[in-house]
Formats: sequence, structure tokens, C-alpha cells
Amino acid sequence: LNALLMAPPSSLIVRRLAPRLSGALATASPQLCELRPLSGVARERTQQEQQHEREQQQQQWTGSKWQRVAVAGGLGLSLLVGYCSSCSSSAGRRVAHADASAHPSVAPSDPAFQVPGRVDLPVYKREEVKKHGKGAERMWVTYKMGVYDITDFVESHPGGDKILMAAGGAVDPFWALYAQHKTEDVMEILEGMRVGSLDPTEPAPVHAVDASDPFSTDPPRHPALIVNNPKPFNAETPPSLMMDNFRTPNDLFFVRNHLPVPQTDLASHRVRIEGLGKGRKDIELSVDELKKRYKEHYVTSVVQCGGNRRADMQKYKKVAGLMWEGYAISNAKWTGVRLRDVLIDLGVDPNDETIKHVHLEGADVDPTGKPYGASIPFEKAMSPEVLIAYSMNDEPIPSDHGFPLRCIVPGVVGARQVKWLTLVRLSDVESPSHFQQKDYRAFSPSVQHGDELDWNSVPSIQDYPIQSAFCLPATGTTVDREDGTVDVAGYAWSGGGRGIIRVEVSPDGGKTWYSAEMEQDPDQNQDKMWAWTLFRASIPIPPGVDKMDMVVKATDRSYNTQPETAAGIWNIRGLLHNAWHHVEVKIRD
Amino acid sequence: LNALLMAPPSSLIVRRLAPRLSGALATASPQLCELRPLSGVARERTQQEQQHEREQQQQQWTGSKWQRVAVAGGLGLSLLVGYCSSCSSSAGRRVAHADASAHPSVAPSDPAFQVPGRVDLPVYKREEVKKHGKGAERMWVTYKMGVYDITDFVESHPGGDKILMAAGGAVDPFWALYAQHKTEDVMEILEGMRVGSLDPTEPAPVHAVDASDPFSTDPPRHPALIVNNPKPFNAETPPSLMMDNFRTPNDLFFVRNHLPVPQTDLASHRVRIEGLGKGRKDIELSVDELKKRYKEHYVTSVVQCGGNRRADMQKYKKVAGLMWEGYAISNAKWTGVRLRDVLIDLGVDPNDETIKHVHLEGADVDPTGKPYGASIPFEKAMSPEVLIAYSMNDEPIPSDHGFPLRCIVPGVVGARQVKWLTLVRLSDVESPSHFQQKDYRAFSPSVQHGDELDWNSVPSIQDYPIQSAFCLPATGTTVDREDGTVDVAGYAWSGGGRGIIRVEVSPDGGKTWYSAEMEQDPDQNQDKMWAWTLFRASIPIPPGVDKMDMVVKATDRSYNTQPETAAGIWNIRGLLHNAWHHVEVKIRD
Repeated sequence: LNALLMAPPSSLIVRRLAPRLSGALATASPQLCELRPLSGVARERTQQEQQHEREQQQQQWTGSKWQRVAVAGGLGLSLLVGYCSSCSSSAGRRVAHADASAHPSVAPSDPAFQVPGRVDLPVYKREEVKKHGKGAERMWVTYKMGVYDITDFVESHPGGDKILMAAGGAVDPFWALYAQHKTEDVMEILEGMRVGSLDPTEPAPVHAVDASDPFSTDPPRHPALIVNNPKPFNAETPPSLMMDNFRTPNDLFFVRNHLPVPQTDLASHRVRIEGLGKGRKDIELSVDELKKRYKEHYVTSVVQCGGNRRADMQKYKKVAGLMWEGYAISNAKWTGVRLRDVLIDLGVDPNDETIKHVHLEGADVDPTGKPYGASIPFEKAMSPEVLIAYSMNDEPIPSDHGFPLRCIVPGVVGARQVKWLTLVRLSDVESPSHFQQKDYRAFSPSVQHGDELDWNSVPSIQDYPIQSAFCLPATGTTVDREDGTVDVAGYAWSGGGRGIIRVEVSPDGGKTWYSAEMEQDPDQNQDKMWAWTLFRASIPIPPGVDKMDMVVKATDRSYNTQPETAAGIWNIRGLLHNAWHHVEVKIRD
Repeated sequence: LNALLMAPPSSLIVRRLAPRLSGALATASPQLCELRPLSGVARERTQQEQQHEREQQQQQWTGSKWQRVAVAGGLGLSLLVGYCSSCSSSAGRRVAHADASAHPSVAPSDPAFQVPGRVDLPVYKREEVKKHGKGAERMWVTYKMGVYDITDFVESHPGGDKILMAAGGAVDPFWALYAQHKTEDVMEILEGMRVGSLDPTEPAPVHAVDASDPFSTDPPRHPALIVNNPKPFNAETPPSLMMDNFRTPNDLFFVRNHLPVPQTDLASHRVRIEGLGKGRKDIELSVDELKKRYKEHYVTSVVQCGGNRRADMQKYKKVAGLMWEGYAISNAKWTGVRLRDVLIDLGVDPNDETIKHVHLEGADVDPTGKPYGASIPFEKAMSPEVLIAYSMNDEPIPSDHGFPLRCIVPGVVGARQVKWLTLVRLSDVESPSHFQQKDYRAFSPSVQHGDELDWNSVPSIQDYPIQSAFCLPATGTTVDREDGTVDVAGYAWSGGGRGIIRVEVSPDGGKTWYSAEMEQDPDQNQDKMWAWTLFRASIPIPPGVDKMDMVVKATDRSYNTQPETAAGIWNIRGLLHNAWHHVEVKIRD
């Protein structure tokens, strides 16, 4: 059973059931999806790099109660190179496939990954499997062509009820993320739950393109994403999977699209640079030219939607916008060239005081043909952390995240980190784009519904304020009093490179505080921290209570903290909600 | 009466009683104190500069209800060159004097400033005048050798009860700050209140030097400063005078000394630069050499004590430290040379990654001979706003503020802006000074009294978080309901150059908010705002209330806001209190 682990560093369940994972997991070698459509710049991580990463993870937690979990986490991270990224990186090479069971992410030579036929059992169509979803009397999953009844197994699943995310469908995309399942032991347990096979005569569902629907060419997405809006596609990372990796896997990275995903092509894509000054012509650069001309750099950096935690602000008072919970935020390694290097090479003086802003535009266009646009201050654009990125977690950037080029602006709200980048324009004014001028500006609480919005009265959001939230446990979870503590985990981050100096959690609504343990990027320091901080703590259960109002709040390098409530930050558009995050749990005797 | 204005831009009283001040004030030409001991680098502002300043002030407020006040404010500012700075800039040229009546800040040729003898009235000693202080049945002040009973005048004083600050003593130092009093009209009104003369045979009090008291050579201070601790000297700017000038006059600038004021000398003072790297010798530079070698720059920048508003935090829960109210913060124009220019000239590479911190030391030493010390990150030290300053508001820096050299580090807590600067040292580690290592670090609320303090667990304070507070009115003030509104004013500021994007005030503890009007430095922008923001608003009195819990809070360029209460920021040392500031007023029918 220990080997059937779904989610390495997630919770105390891991600690109880999986004392030593390293042995079993170390033998599961990473497998790359056969269908991977793009080789491009993708580099496989070397064994040395993987080892380095493992060591960093282990050092991070050495000496803490989390050490064992961290070891598992380290392995989990290194194994993640095995997940299938064909769906999300298939832009420009669209293939007909829709669910992950159509992707045999197996290495045929490995006997553990075989799913032999079973003539003794019934054959089911996918529609029948779907009826056995989460909450059904009997819950089924499929793996390749096998159909399995997991109902009696859920309780003892080491990864907890995460397995239910797959109920009624395929586990394949999850196992692509949690490759440690791919062992003979696991396959043996799985086969013990077999109830049938998928009908081999049923054609794989085809991803149909409908010319009347501009969103029909959007890429397939991982089934675990929590969809907020299908068109344009907007989805959060599931909080229960968020803590599993310091760098969010591409397939689970939250998606915030404003428009249909554009059909970009690696070879023909160009980024145009305009406004270089008198006597200097505009120039267009391909991805290959960027790579050839400029030095490669990488940064591990957060993207957070300006509307993250809007649903929480709405609890205080009605706001308008997509009702993001707290997981429109993710963290990835971005690789590309410095915007600074490109501009200086093209003759731009970093101290040119006539340039105030840098406009960015994407290939995504609205029905009138107007592209998504934004701008960042020139000084920020010239900072070394700002990249024209072509890789995300060492893969080509998936089409939902900007294939083939995205401008990464660490420390700044997601809305300025323009995807499918086609244009960089130097200017003395901010971008005239709707998204810069009439959106992503947080009004005062004094501006009420029905008021005319004076967009010029507030500046465009750039740096994000300090933020933190729990990922685990979920509100409403019941905890046994005899456990003594409630294990909590989540993320913290602040804009402008301001490192998180502490995360504190409270069992009682903010009267008492405990310091949480923090996991941070060892390559970054408190003054230039673009990556997030993951935190974990075991909060003692106070005697006599039957519920706990747990709170988290963080402090950054400038000693800025989060406000207690939305009272001072509420704004009609529900932007930048960063009040203390509360999770209520029940205590069971 | 209109001409008897004490405080130009302070409050609604100005607006009601002084509709047009410009005529009367424009004729009062600035007068410099005869005793001014240092000419040094002091430059008189040219008429052109004064005019420019007036225009900026006026533009700032044009079109607002505050316009008339702003006109007066602009004039007040330009007139401030007339205040006497001899006391505070006399370091190195100590003269025996203690109260400001010993300073004839008159231009003998101007008949308005004469105080003729009055043989018809009694003669009083200073001790007798002192008995007629604030709250006495009859309140007296002196001006030069005249003694005046102001009791019946207080009500109609256009500057409000600010005049009571002088009760029992001399108005001379106040008139030095508010030079518009020096007109014939004002002298006529004053003489109408005359009750006697000071005894001409009484010797002026001598500032005695006591060899056994290391503080006895401290300079005299302006009587309006609110003294928190006399030795070492720590005093706040009086809030009722704080709003009168965008740049706090040197005499009213808050003082935070850790040790006795050192006896520095302009000619012999040196700043030593150490740690320049292999093959480069340490170097010592005089003030003159700094001025000759490097280009002069200025910055208008706030200094705020890390303990500002500690008394407010103490209301939440006991803390340790000097009980600053909310006025250990001031704003001045600092002139000097860029630390960056000096270091680059001496061969330092701005991108040298082996240099992490820059140590700063002052001439002030503890009983063991150890100097005050601090450090700032190397990257900050190399930023263009960081100065080795020799002027404060266009005067030599007064001895309480670091004569002759102070390191000005805009956006950073006051404790790192080392006064009486003697040493700059490049290093790979932070300063070992007590003040860097064992002070000015804000612990978590979970660290309680009696806990052993693990100083390494928290980073040294550098950037200040967002702050704001009311200066007017004072808590407990009674306001007439028929006024309809309560006029409020105060300051807001954030560290790291993050400009204030809004200040909001609430009449009801934070349920309702109104945006305040802001006065900002027109030479600075939201991304590099080192100066403070002054705010003013007229808050409507809600119907039916007999008191108002007024609140102010500000938002900075990174959309960081202040926490509602101290619940999440309380720390055992009472540092960086920046919760919402409350002022309660009574409403009278």
C-alpha cells in the first residue's frame, strides 16, 4: 500500500502511512509521453540537476518535523519530468485527442505499465464509467483500457481523497503527474480492483473544431483544474495538489485567459520591437533568433491573477468579476532571454528618461481584432529578472500559458505578464489597452456600485501586495481531537521581489499566533524573491473547542502585512484581496 | 487681526478668518538670524526659487476647496527661510544661550520689530512669567523684553491655540518659524496686551557645561518639541505644527538620539571609506573634499523612527521602548553627494557580487567608546537617492541631526540613516553593531515577554511599511454639530519609494470611507516617492452621533495597506506600528 502514494508531501496522512518512500520511488524512472509534439528548446533535466534539486529540498527541511515528507517531496519533484505535457504544449501541432486515456504514457518495455486484457470481465463505454463519479454509490476509474472500482480503497489511499478527482474518468493524467504510481506493486493493487475494460471499439473522443466557436481550438486541459469559466478558459489549481510541488506542474498551473487561445506557430511566430527611437527601425525577431542572439536566463517566479481570492472579498460585500477562490496563483521556472538585453542590444539607453513605459501585446485578439495589451514601467522592463520566456518548467510554454513566448515580469500582477507575446513598444505613456486603462485598477472602498468609475483616479496595478492563503485543510474538514494538532499548509508571496520573512497561523481567529515553517527558493534572497514561499505548520487544538477558526497571514521584507478583513481594501471590482485567510475546521471527540 | 496669523495652512480656522493673506505676508521679507554661526554651504533661496515653490504649491491645490489655504501655505513655506537656526546649527561653535529670547532675530532697521521700553509697567523675572503658563488663570508670553497677557486673545488668535505652546515663556522661537508675525500690525496688537517688561538686570540663562554629564554639551532645542526623553534627547514634532510645512523646519524636525550629541567640527570632520577591495587603500574625506569632488544632489525624504506610534501599539498590549506617539517622523530636503558617486569614483564596481552590505558609523559613542552603527544593503547604497548629506532644508545639518554629515537612505527606517557620519565600510556581512543586530528587528506576535529573543530569526528592518496618522484634530477635541464637517489632516508615507496612491478617512471606525486630498512632492513620482504625502479632508458629521471614531489609512503604489489593528503586527519591542490610526472627537449641539 505504501507504494500507492498519490501525493508525496501533502499531509499528515503521508507521514503516517509512508515512513520510507525513497526505496520504492527511486526505482521508478521518469517516462516521457510518446505523443510529445514539440522538441524545440525542451531540455531534459540531467541526473545531476535532479540530484541537486533533491539535495536542496532536503536541506530546506533538515531538522524539522517535516523532514521525511520533504524527502518524498524532493523525489516527487524530480519525478515530475515524467508527466505528460502533450495536451498543453500541442499548440501549432493540434492532434485529435481529448481525454488523457488516449495518451499511452507508458514505456512499453516496462512490465509494470502493461494492462493486459481480461476476457472474464464486462466491457464498458466511457459514458457508463462517468456515472460512477465522485459521490456515486460505487466509484470507478479507468487506467488505459482497464476499469476499476476504487470505492473500498479510497479510505486507505495514501494520497487521501485526491484519488476521487479521477472518479468517473481516467487516472492516467494524474499518474502522469505522480509518476511514482508506475510500479509493479501499484499495478497489482490496481488489478485487484478491476471490474471491466473499456470498449475497444469505442473511438477515442475527438476534439472537434467548430468554426462558429472561437474557443473550439482551445487546447485540452488537465481534468484536475477547477474551471471557473470555460470560454474564455479560466481555472484554478486544485488546492489539494498545490503543495505537492514547489514549481507548479504546467498542467496544473492556473489559467487566466481573456480571449480564445491564439493559434501560434513556433517557426513563424515573431515579436516586433517598436519605438526604439529616432533613426532606429522596428525589428521583428523569431524565437530562434532570440535564442541565438541573447544569453539564456531563468527565474522561478509566481504568476498571480489580480482577482485571486475575489470570492473571499465577496463574503464581505458584493463585487464583480470571476469568482476565484484562492488558487489563481502558481509558481514556475521560466527560461528565456532578458528583455533588457534585447533592448540594450537594439540601442536603447537604460537611462533614457524619455521612455517611461513598455507596452506588451499578445496574439490573442477580441472580435474586433484588437489584441490583449498591457504595459510595465520602463525601469521594471530594464530589470534583469524580466524575461521574454520560451520555456516553463523546462518545457516549451504550453499554449494556455503563452506558446511560444510570454513576457515574464516577476513581482507584478499576472495581467501584465503578456502571453503569446507579439509586440514590445517603448513609449512615454502607458498602454492604451482596455486591460491597462479600464481594468486591473483597484478603487477605493468609497466607490460604490452604480458610481461612475473614474479609471484615471487610480493607478494601474503593477507590484502585487503581500498575500497568503491555506491550501490544506479545506474549510469544513473534521479533525480528531486526539490528533492533538491540525496540520496546515499553504502559500505566501509578495510583489516587488519582497521576500516573505514570516508566516504565522492562528488557531483562534487571530488572538494567538504560531510561526509556520517556510520552504523558499534557495537561489533567491529576501530582497529579490520572485518565487513563492510554501508554509507548513501543526496547530495545536485548544482544549474544549468543537471548532477552530484558523487564520494565516504573512509578513514581507518591508514588514508589510495583510489587513485583517476586507473593510479597508474592499473594491467594486474585487481586485487584490489579501485579507487574512480563514479556514474553519470541526473538532471531533 | 488677520495679520496675526501664527500657522498658515493648518486648519479651517485659517480658512474662516484669513480670506486673503497674500497681501500682508508678501511684504514681510525673510530675515536671517544675526547669530547664525555657520555660513558653510548654506545658500539663501533665490527669489526665483521662492516663486517656483509658490507656484508648485498653488498648482498642487488648484481647483480644490483647499486652494486658499494652499496659497497661504505656499507663502508660509517661502517665508520659512526667515526662521532662526542658530541654536540647532551651532555645533562646533557652542555659544552660551538657552532660551530663544536671547536671540534677537530682528532686523534693527525694521520698525515693526522694535520693542520699546515701557516705564509705566512693572518688571518681571522669567520665573514669574513661567507661572503664567498654559492653564494658568492669566496666561503670559514674552517677546524680546516685553511681557504680554494673551489670555483674552487666545480665542481670536487665527492660528488657534497653538499660541498656548508659548504660554509662560517666549514667543520668539515660534515667530522665528512663523515670520509673518513680524509686521507693524501684529506688533501693535501685541503691545495692546502688554503687562510689563522682563528684568533687564536678569542675566540670560547660560547653557552650563557639566563635565560629569555627557549630555551637557547637547545643543539647545526648540521649546515646541515634545520631549520623550531628555538624555539621550528624543522628541517629537508637535502634531499641531506638523501640517504647516511640507518640509519640516529643522528646529521642529523630530529628534531620535541614542547617545550624547558628539562635538563635531566642520573643518576637521572626516568620513573614512573602508573595504574598497584588494589593492585599494582606505581613504578619508573632509566635507570640503566631498563637495569639491562630487556633484551635488538633493532629495526630499522622510525620516521615521522604527518606534513611531509605539504608544498606540501599547494600547493593544504592553511593549518596551520609548513611548512615541505618532510624530517621530519628519520630512526635509537633504543636499549632498551620492554615496554611489563616491564609491564608484573610488573604484567600486556597482555589480560586485562579493559586496553585500555597507556599514555606516557615526561620531556618537557609548561609554565604552563604541560608535553608533548600522548597515544597508549594497544595492540600496548604490541607488541614486542615497546621499552623504551636508545640508538639511538648505541649511547646514543641525547638530541634533548629524552635523556635519548624515547618510540619507530614503525609504528606509531612520535607524539606518546614520548621523555624524564618520565611516562607510563595504562588507559581505551586515554591521555587527548592536543597533543592527540586537535592535530594530520586529519579532512575531508569538514572541512574548520573558521569551529569549532570537535576534537572528528576524531580519533587520530596512524598508518601512506603509504608514499614516492624523495630525489634526487631537483626540478629545469637541466639534460643533452645526459645522457639518470635521476638518482633518495628517501624513502618509511608505518605504521603498512606494508612492501613496490614496488616503482614506472614516467617520465611523472604518465602515464608511472618504478619499482625502493629497499634497505630494511634484518632483517625485509614484515609483520613487521618498517625501511624505500630507492629506486633508472634511469629514461629514453623521446625523445623531455625539462622538465620532475617525480613522485614517493609506494605500501605496504596491497596493499595500495598513492593518486594522495591532493584532497581527504586535511585537514585544513595539516597532513599526502601522495599524489604522484612530482619533475620537465629541460632537456638541
